[in-house]
Amino acid sequence: MTTIKIQPITPEAFAPFGDVLTPRATPDRLINAGRCERHHALATVERGEGEAIISIFRSESVSLPYDCPMLERHPLGSQAFMPLGDDPWMTVVAHDDGGKPGLPLAFLVPAGTGINLRAGVWHGVLTPLDKPAQFLVVDREGDGVNLEEAQITPVRITA
Amino acid sequence: MTTIKIQPITPEAFAPFGDVLTPRATPDRLINAGRCERHHALATVERGEGEAIISIFRSESVSLPYDCPMLERHPLGSQAFMPLGDDPWMTVVAHDDGGKPGLPLAFLVPAGTGINLRAGVWHGVLTPLDKPAQFLVVDREGDGVNLEEAQITPVRITA
Repeated sequence: MTTIKIQPITPEAFAPFGDVLTPRATPDRLINAGRCERHHALATVERGEGEAIISIFRSESVSLPYDCPMLERHPLGSQAFMPLGDDPWMTVVAHDDGGKPGLPLAFLVPAGTGINLRAGVWHGVLTPLDKPAQFLVVDREGDGVNLEEAQITPVRITA
Repeated sequence: MTTIKIQPITPEAFAPFGDVLTPRATPDRLINAGRCERHHALATVERGEGEAIISIFRSESVSLPYDCPMLERHPLGSQAFMPLGDDPWMTVVAHDDGGKPGLPLAFLVPAGTGINLRAGVWHGVLTPLDKPAQFLVVDREGDGVNLEEAQITPVRITA
């Protein structure tokens, strides 16, 4: 089985897949008479003709080593995940290779950090590590087929 | 000075102003082969001709008693706040009274619970209680004047 190592997420490494939701080094502006930093538009929701909606996901966890058997993508909209707990989590993504996912990459995402997957990016299901976790999710609702799944030859992800 | 008491938020009490972002008693659906609860579309972003964006706010705190001197509203879009820390926080809102805010109401919002203010709802600035806090914010970006501020005769909010 092909084995890959989980790697720490960075905005640069994740850029082909989407945005990292974390405060910038300096805020874009101060609001509320200087009492509040606004780290502005870390992501823009892609929604086509649909609407942006806010949901909460509560997911069971996985542990490493983890064999990833499937990737999916949402061609019509972006999907943002922000963890609401105190634990790091994992996101698995892949480049597209002629309409199918290429070799996955696994990123370790710190607690308090979210991601926004751009429309059409191959990704694994939500994978908190070791403990169930809750996420705020911002994605798209509307007409059209917005889910494509691809079974893959399982790839083992290790620490 | 007029004094009001902070009250626990409930979906019913908050309904005239917006949505409470917390998991429902039962999830709307199970996804990821039953491993993940989806509490679906707790809020829909109002954005008019603009776009939905995701930002992070980092705000200084206030403590009770707190004298609220000003309310604001965003006529062109909704604004959702989800706390990313472990502490309860406060949201102040008011009904509209002929284009000006009426008497404010203050809600105590538990840790892990967010709100989505509907477009045009009068509200106070972001007020974490006692400790600075960080929030994921989903609101609108686009053309047009989307901020209206109203100085009010200060209202004292007590525990």
